[in-house]
Amino acid sequence: MTDQDTHLSASGQEGTDGPRPTGEAVGWHKGYVGGSRPDLRVPVRRVHLTNGRDVTLYDTSGPYTDPAVDTDVRRGLAPLRENWIIGRGDTEEYAGRAPRPEDDGLKHTTPRGGTLPGGSGNLRGLDAVFPGRPRQPRRGRAGRTVTQLAYARQGEITPEMEYVAIRENVSPETVRDEIAAGRAVLPANVNHPESEPMIIGKRFLVKVNANIGNSAVTSSIEEEVEKMTWATRWGADTVMDLSTGRNIHTTREWVLRNSPVPIGTVPLYQALEKVDGKAEELTWDIYKDTVIEQAEQGVDYMTVHAGVLLRYVPLTARRKTGIVSRGGSIMAAWCLAHHKESFLYENFDELCEILAAYDVTYSLGDGLRPGSIADANDEAQFAELRTLGELNTIAKSHQVQTMIEGPGHVPMHKIKENIDLQQEICEEAPFYTLGPLTTDVAPAYDHITSGIGAAMIAWWGTAMLCYVTPKEHLGLPDRDDVKTGVITYKIAAHAADLAKGHPGAQEWDDALSDARFEFRWEDQFNLALDPDTAREFHDETLPAEPAKTAHFCSMCGPKFCSMKISQDIRRRHGDDLSGGSGADGTEPGRTGEGGTGPGGATAASAAEIEAGMAEKSKEFAAAGNRVYLPLAD
Amino acid sequence: MTDQDTHLSASGQEGTDGPRPTGEAVGWHKGYVGGSRPDLRVPVRRVHLTNGRDVTLYDTSGPYTDPAVDTDVRRGLAPLRENWIIGRGDTEEYAGRAPRPEDDGLKHTTPRGGTLPGGSGNLRGLDAVFPGRPRQPRRGRAGRTVTQLAYARQGEITPEMEYVAIRENVSPETVRDEIAAGRAVLPANVNHPESEPMIIGKRFLVKVNANIGNSAVTSSIEEEVEKMTWATRWGADTVMDLSTGRNIHTTREWVLRNSPVPIGTVPLYQALEKVDGKAEELTWDIYKDTVIEQAEQGVDYMTVHAGVLLRYVPLTARRKTGIVSRGGSIMAAWCLAHHKESFLYENFDELCEILAAYDVTYSLGDGLRPGSIADANDEAQFAELRTLGELNTIAKSHQVQTMIEGPGHVPMHKIKENIDLQQEICEEAPFYTLGPLTTDVAPAYDHITSGIGAAMIAWWGTAMLCYVTPKEHLGLPDRDDVKTGVITYKIAAHAADLAKGHPGAQEWDDALSDARFEFRWEDQFNLALDPDTAREFHDETLPAEPAKTAHFCSMCGPKFCSMKISQDIRRRHGDDLSGGSGADGTEPGRTGEGGTGPGGATAASAAEIEAGMAEKSKEFAAAGNRVYLPLAD
Repeated sequence: MTDQDTHLSASGQEGTDGPRPTGEAVGWHKGYVGGSRPDLRVPVRRVHLTNGRDVTLYDTSGPYTDPAVDTDVRRGLAPLRENWIIGRGDTEEYAGRAPRPEDDGLKHTTPRGGTLPGGSGNLRGLDAVFPGRPRQPRRGRAGRTVTQLAYARQGEITPEMEYVAIRENVSPETVRDEIAAGRAVLPANVNHPESEPMIIGKRFLVKVNANIGNSAVTSSIEEEVEKMTWATRWGADTVMDLSTGRNIHTTREWVLRNSPVPIGTVPLYQALEKVDGKAEELTWDIYKDTVIEQAEQGVDYMTVHAGVLLRYVPLTARRKTGIVSRGGSIMAAWCLAHHKESFLYENFDELCEILAAYDVTYSLGDGLRPGSIADANDEAQFAELRTLGELNTIAKSHQVQTMIEGPGHVPMHKIKENIDLQQEICEEAPFYTLGPLTTDVAPAYDHITSGIGAAMIAWWGTAMLCYVTPKEHLGLPDRDDVKTGVITYKIAAHAADLAKGHPGAQEWDDALSDARFEFRWEDQFNLALDPDTAREFHDETLPAEPAKTAHFCSMCGPKFCSMKISQDIRRRHGDDLSGGSGADGTEPGRTGEGGTGPGGATAASAAEIEAGMAEKSKEFAAAGNRVYLPLAD
Repeated sequence: MTDQDTHLSASGQEGTDGPRPTGEAVGWHKGYVGGSRPDLRVPVRRVHLTNGRDVTLYDTSGPYTDPAVDTDVRRGLAPLRENWIIGRGDTEEYAGRAPRPEDDGLKHTTPRGGTLPGGSGNLRGLDAVFPGRPRQPRRGRAGRTVTQLAYARQGEITPEMEYVAIRENVSPETVRDEIAAGRAVLPANVNHPESEPMIIGKRFLVKVNANIGNSAVTSSIEEEVEKMTWATRWGADTVMDLSTGRNIHTTREWVLRNSPVPIGTVPLYQALEKVDGKAEELTWDIYKDTVIEQAEQGVDYMTVHAGVLLRYVPLTARRKTGIVSRGGSIMAAWCLAHHKESFLYENFDELCEILAAYDVTYSLGDGLRPGSIADANDEAQFAELRTLGELNTIAKSHQVQTMIEGPGHVPMHKIKENIDLQQEICEEAPFYTLGPLTTDVAPAYDHITSGIGAAMIAWWGTAMLCYVTPKEHLGLPDRDDVKTGVITYKIAAHAADLAKGHPGAQEWDDALSDARFEFRWEDQFNLALDPDTAREFHDETLPAEPAKTAHFCSMCGPKFCSMKISQDIRRRHGDDLSGGSGADGTEPGRTGEGGTGPGGATAASAAEIEAGMAEKSKEFAAAGNRVYLPLAD
């Protein structure tokens, strides 16, 4: 379906000049809004309309869409936040953990830095080691807590907070206060200075995460880097690298050094590879070492399935679909094998200390989430949620930023209970949900079954939505699937922003609807979430260039067009009938009751209306009794 | 994108043997459930599972998917209901209205029956006149009311009612009572005996309508017939023929004679063609004649925009997108031109009498529905809804079945008000909504923006959803778009059935989830709403035949699989830990509070758990400390 061998540029065009994702987008250009210091410039997407107006939209695509920036995936992005991090003076560089062959799943057989076995096929155009500038990892100095949560609690507004305040069109104080209260997180590992700050919390725009990652079965490093830039091009606010095959470490390095958005991982996946997939052989030391490895690379948030307790495992035995979370089932297997509580739960305090040293944000995983409609909101799921609530409290005591993961498969009438319980149990920590899928019967369309649930739960308070692609349950997403998943979830997120009344959210809809009403086709395309596909669909029916300025469309054709009639009505009535209404009296027709419109508008008397309408009728006749202009052909 | 020149067969395969849509579907076969009389056989879709079970699903695909039936689009479907209609003895055949050239938009220049001008291109393989058996139209005898509503009110259970009771798995009395109360409609024109009875009402399965229809710009009769069979193949419960170009009459004849589902139209569209697109030249006589023409052909329900009152038109003047309903804008134009209430409103009683004579169901159109987020729930929209409430009462006094159309573009937080108001104002008459679209910013994805709103409003009580395709706002849907629209809306409808707790709805999800959990890949595909695409997506990642029986999938690969672990947990715990639970005590770990799971399950003491778990741990070790079986390779 998609040719995964071709390279992509950020403009959505296929390129042939190697793996450099760049190029200006069509229909909009990159702009920046300045902050209180010269190195604080917040990227925005400016759509130029043919009527001279500009519409400014949130932009996640990074420097790749700025033609003034020379990007190169072999060099990585500029470390935007580096000076801010260094300037705080509370971190230090250190030698860091030495890389090991098993970090890439190589079982001690091959030294790092050479060509990996089978590498040429798996790596495609990218090298086994990221060739960018040498760097040492950074961590908080002894006695200093370097998390955005700690800063916020101290009343400090960091450059990162100011950055997101500009992005979200709210005050920096609002950002600081929401983070301080634990109602929002700003994932920003000190070792990922390339990332553009963003915030996840219910008072802010709903965010979307896109998963990428190779597996034992398929895909290369280059493909994963491409998927990352591709996903952010279409609006992904964060990206999770869920790789489980070979080259996990190296893939992540390439992704991090080139990612303008926070990167999340599930460290357990890599730890499992290090013990050759034998869950019972996992240990706290192996896991801890993996977390440090990833924190030093710059992972911004980590899913930790510490809520899977031994005594919850039997609760899943009579489920329709048992445990469907990969992390959850690994931990369940470990608990069963050792017959004790998991090393994640038992060492949670120490884990908090590690995460705090790098400002890695917790995403407390829902290992027992329901995998089918039948299992939604069951005992296992809510028992784990209660434990996540306890862990949230502990994490906060270490000043570690924390969000909570949510389901899964949930029918519509059971969705609200999920967000309400989570908000209550977890003290309003940001909820980060996968869907939920509202039915099980549509594999190949689970972006839609889950987009429905995602929109609803986001309206009710979920802060970030983890996308689901059409390949869910069936295979690994390719480039087309990634795009479809992101677009579907941007729709869900924006629908929720509208329903929540987020300041400014409706301006986008209004701008597009104005363009639609005024037959500004190019503006309609350029304002669309996916301009390319909108343009392509239009051109399928009316391919000629004049059709893009035509005052009709293919639905009704040139002879009769409702939009044209409406414009005529507006011309005739909109400008001179006072009060935005002009009709609110009793009706002269058959039924005398129920004819009063809903209140709120200025009422005009029936006599006034009559007079106004009679005059309009005369004007109408004078104009030839035609409410639309005849078109040339 | 799609080759519209190829013919389709109902099995989803492209055929080359002419325009006959037939063939058995893959993965399921047609079955029938018998009723109280030999000629009452309700079709069902039986999915054979590899475990020997059968799952029975609702089927809308008509005789085309029954290999025992010899279908031919040139002959039309068998008149399934003819004997029931004749048997009631309350209808009569009559000569009917003589066909005229202008019925097909031919401006009196060409006699009917010959080759239409430009016809070979427009008609493709189908003839200008439907070649099936000669038929005379039928109508109610003088003094007899032949509507299902009239029968229900008299306490009668018609074969049609019994048929839908079997389809819906409810009692015939429930069907009769819901129709009698006006809470449900059973669209069944006496001149469309080919249709398989179905019901639209909030107590029943949520239904989906698919729009087809040529326009002045594109498409042929053959394409429209194909779209109809294609839409019903994927689950469309009714089809609206919204043709606006040439050959409207002939297209409709072909569609009706071959349609196993009720057909709806907007007679105003054809009437407008008869006056060459000049709205002000429309008259009651032209409109009435068109309604009779269509009723004689067998149209089962008609959209009538009688609620657009003159005094409401100015309410739309300051809207963001004015009037977006084509019918609404035609009537608004007429009202403005004549400065009086519309001929639809003024002649509504007579129109009721005509519809009653054929048992045509009203779909009272929302001509002033909002066309943008900004215009949702405004004065114009709700003023018209109040008038539709009045018209509903009048229609019921004539014993005409009636449903009410709803919007449109509505943000999520304003959706519920729509269904609540409609149900209150229209005495629980079935609501039939277009979406609603929950945001304006995603042209090319409006099946998704609207699928979200559709699922929600259906959960809250909408009885039928009018689909939206990816081409909405951009162009005319092709075959792929029709399928995508139908599948998306079947998802929304089924998600709502689940949320409403419709009897049996969850069995489908459970069957698919069981198949998923047990790695019965073929069953998972065959139970899917779209088996073809599910299979195709799976095969993209794991194409080999053995992968379809593999006990893992491409997401995690063979080394570790959460489903495998869950099955192991079930084996170890599910069958011998009593009460379906096994854990509800206090927790020995770090935090003493919050560890109690939600109530409802039988509690086992902590000591019992300990004992059980210790035993399990021993078993686990004896099995080699592996929770999953190593796979051959």
